[in-house]
Amino acid sequence: MKSMSDFFPMKSPPESVSLFAEFIPLASEMVPLSMARGRVLAEEIVSGEALPPFSRSTMDGYAVRAADTYGCSGLEEALVTVIGEIAMGTSSQALCLQPGQAARIATGGELPAMADAVVMVEVTRPLDNKTVAVSRPVAPGENIIRAGEDYAPGAVVLRRGSRLRPQEMGVLSGLGVVSVPVHRRPRVAILSTGDELVPAEQTPPPGKIRDINSTTLAALVEEAGGIAIAHGICGDDFENMLAVCTEALVEADVLLLSGGSSRGRRDFTHQVFSAIPHAQMLTHGVSVRPGKPTILARQGNKSLFGLPGPAASAMVIFYCFVRPLLRYYSGLGATLGLSSIRATTAQPFPSAIGREEYVRVQLSPQDGGAPPLATAVYGKSGLLSPLVRADGLLPIGCEIEGFGRGVEVSVLLFP
Amino acid sequence: MKSMSDFFPMKSPPESVSLFAEFIPLASEMVPLSMARGRVLAEEIVSGEALPPFSRSTMDGYAVRAADTYGCSGLEEALVTVIGEIAMGTSSQALCLQPGQAARIATGGELPAMADAVVMVEVTRPLDNKTVAVSRPVAPGENIIRAGEDYAPGAVVLRRGSRLRPQEMGVLSGLGVVSVPVHRRPRVAILSTGDELVPAEQTPPPGKIRDINSTTLAALVEEAGGIAIAHGICGDDFENMLAVCTEALVEADVLLLSGGSSRGRRDFTHQVFSAIPHAQMLTHGVSVRPGKPTILARQGNKSLFGLPGPAASAMVIFYCFVRPLLRYYSGLGATLGLSSIRATTAQPFPSAIGREEYVRVQLSPQDGGAPPLATAVYGKSGLLSPLVRADGLLPIGCEIEGFGRGVEVSVLLFP
Repeated sequence: MKSMSDFFPMKSPPESVSLFAEFIPLASEMVPLSMARGRVLAEEIVSGEALPPFSRSTMDGYAVRAADTYGCSGLEEALVTVIGEIAMGTSSQALCLQPGQAARIATGGELPAMADAVVMVEVTRPLDNKTVAVSRPVAPGENIIRAGEDYAPGAVVLRRGSRLRPQEMGVLSGLGVVSVPVHRRPRVAILSTGDELVPAEQTPPPGKIRDINSTTLAALVEEAGGIAIAHGICGDDFENMLAVCTEALVEADVLLLSGGSSRGRRDFTHQVFSAIPHAQMLTHGVSVRPGKPTILARQGNKSLFGLPGPAASAMVIFYCFVRPLLRYYSGLGATLGLSSIRATTAQPFPSAIGREEYVRVQLSPQDGGAPPLATAVYGKSGLLSPLVRADGLLPIGCEIEGFGRGVEVSVLLFP
Repeated sequence: MKSMSDFFPMKSPPESVSLFAEFIPLASEMVPLSMARGRVLAEEIVSGEALPPFSRSTMDGYAVRAADTYGCSGLEEALVTVIGEIAMGTSSQALCLQPGQAARIATGGELPAMADAVVMVEVTRPLDNKTVAVSRPVAPGENIIRAGEDYAPGAVVLRRGSRLRPQEMGVLSGLGVVSVPVHRRPRVAILSTGDELVPAEQTPPPGKIRDINSTTLAALVEEAGGIAIAHGICGDDFENMLAVCTEALVEADVLLLSGGSSRGRRDFTHQVFSAIPHAQMLTHGVSVRPGKPTILARQGNKSLFGLPGPAASAMVIFYCFVRPLLRYYSGLGATLGLSSIRATTAQPFPSAIGREEYVRVQLSPQDGGAPPLATAVYGKSGLLSPLVRADGLLPIGCEIEGFGRGVEVSVLLFP
């Protein structure tokens, strides 16, 4: 009996990821700034005003004209006349320094007109009510932040595609941008298949087991910035599965169907995806271990994944394929987006040429700042305990036969 | 004039972090499993049953007694009699294999009694309705996952202090643990101080600027797993600030007050904290740059931070001190919890002995797998644009005078 995979060639990871270029990032939506952490700008942000809006002191001291302090020292102090004090949070522009004049100022205060520096209080000495002696000169701009020094009016503050970290959110806050245009988060429908599954909250009758992938995939999706939409469990019934998938795709941008790891199941998933209106098969099988029996299809800009059932296989395929696509939909590059760490192999890691392998590894710190040791956590891909013991994945490229012991490698860390 | 800091010694970062040992992790609460991603177990989880609950096939094929296949080959096939087929999701225990018998089984199916291995369909050949020829022997346990192979009944599945990643959530799901005891998330009250501040959504009148720290600190807190509680802006009024802080501490576990970066303001924050009922000052100033004028106090198990006003200083102190404490409260170690990356300095990084310095750096990838180049993004600590350009922080220990050019260093990555 020929399998469907005989008709659809298996794709390598780069070939599969290159398919993502046919998709487009999701549309823009306006989101309150306080809710926008981690989101990606869909439009450039241009500063409508100067930040800061006026020149500010960064010290407690005296606003001066810097030239009045040139050449002064502890032996030959410069004397300035204090003409006022700048109250915090009020405009100081009514004050204008003439040569030889100064104004008392606190950190954050607005510089008076014609002041161009601040002398810090620690290098001053009051002589009388009106006169202060300065023992160290300041240059123009010293101990102040000039109006627009952070961002001038009309400056490009943040580019399209910028991920909003706390500092970017701070800038937007400073400019009064309290609502931001960001790419919509991908909505990901999750469906576990198999007559043997019951929901986690049920006690399985004989021959059945609890659904695990719905939980792990939802957590993986949310960690990657997507919105997980639970569609529960679907038995091995063609009409029902087709109806559930078609319905799920009305609302979702991505469908993750898990469970089709055996040959029969894989063909079944393929048949269901093929029968979905306007769906187009992209790949049937990927040259990755674990996770070979992965199916990728599209329906317009929506993507459909047939993921293997075993937990480790589903997780590897999620990190290698689904996560880059979710990032791409969100406005970032189609990259893994995982931190990696240099490590030394604690043992040989044999692998076969022609398929990319992802080995679960545990990292043990070493003394003296040396890279940690990476030890394989082997185990059947249907087991969860090796994943629980693992800190990350060691990728072994399809063109090499693995790594020897004591080799420096790069390990992808689980987030 | 003597400052308060003359009476309270400045603490080094390790001294400050060691103060956290006086605090205790927050109490346990039950949370639905689907909401528990990233949370930390407050109790050990013991398996109440076997996972998987029965021995399962990991292949499509025939359940057999392995001994019946010993010695077989393509030339000398072993013949077995098929006595039935195991329907997915039904108990197979009514079937019991006698020597020489087999049962058709699909991936995930329950093994019949006395079966101890599965022969995959690819190495079999049907001879008639009842007889199958096997051309490759299997060992006991081959192509199956045994009952309890992942977790035996009574096994410690996850220890107290485990952070729940997708795989840990999967295990709990598989065991039917749909509600989990985790440490409460720290509630963090955020208060910006200063007469010059207006909320981000307002247009500042002359002499005033928009509040930035409320936004950045809330984002930093939520990224670290805390719950940010906005308390807005408080002017430089002792009675009012004392009332706001005291009230905030009723609900919050941590109070972050920002703005006290000048000498006067710092003493003011100190006075407010000292006047809070049952508050105890822990440190007044830390030997870190930027961020020296940081104040830490406690009220029972609650902590109070007086953070510097400039954005970069507040962020450095957050990462060095607040984030480790939030992690500690959440049940993790009092560690930074930031990813780090090896990089090569693109320039000299001078620093003074006696204080720990955190330099904002930008990383540029290099060809040939070499570590990225780290370039300093210098700029006044009150500016946000250097933080926007930066990828992380290069820590320079208090005992060294900095780094030369071309030196390999470890850079803390912004999350």
